[in-house]
Amino acid sequence: MPSLPSDPPPFFQAHLFVCCNRRPDGHKRGSCAARGSEALRDYTKARAKELGLPGVRVNVAGCLDRCELGPVLVIYPEGIWYRAETREDVDEILSAHLVAGGRATRLMLDKKDAPG
Amino acid sequence: MPSLPSDPPPFFQAHLFVCCNRRPDGHKRGSCAARGSEALRDYTKARAKELGLPGVRVNVAGCLDRCELGPVLVIYPEGIWYRAETREDVDEILSAHLVAGGRATRLMLDKKDAPG
Repeated sequence: MPSLPSDPPPFFQAHLFVCCNRRPDGHKRGSCAARGSEALRDYTKARAKELGLPGVRVNVAGCLDRCELGPVLVIYPEGIWYRAETREDVDEILSAHLVAGGRATRLMLDKKDAPG
Repeated sequence: MPSLPSDPPPFFQAHLFVCCNRRPDGHKRGSCAARGSEALRDYTKARAKELGLPGVRVNVAGCLDRCELGPVLVIYPEGIWYRAETREDVDEILSAHLVAGGRATRLMLDKKDAPG
């Protein structure tokens, strides 16, 4: 929803939410945790700290409803969604998006990937 | 961080993250879950569904680092933080923010409440 002129400044410059939802083994949608998101979340948090990026917070989130495309994360306030399957993917996202202020386009979810 | 003209449209019109972190009893910072956030998250999700608000998603989040002020939630993309202690607080936030597009100012965290 739109921001208002009276809104306070953002608490975080970039707020990452890594889906760590786990469904039972064999569930038809699968889940991000079953695809390794918990370890990737830990890595993301550690790498962001190593990079010394100001105002970046990395959080666990419950099911983000993009299960089939997981492991997924979303970066707010810009609301950009990524699929990160490996540590190299995480590095690419941190480097392209958080350090350079651009997009890791290879890993982005697109309009067609939005929830139905 | 700034949006770019090439960014896809947002997947959700309003994405709520309710801190459900739980610290051990007696921890000096306390925690949102110890202050009842899990039940409030369930209520928020159910009420948002009842209100039939399009494009609203309510998620659990890990520690949002505003423990002393909890139970807290944040609404993105606008990045507005609220303290919600009761179901009535949740109703006020949903009504003022999500339905009316304004702010539940009484419950908002302000600049002074930002992480140090």
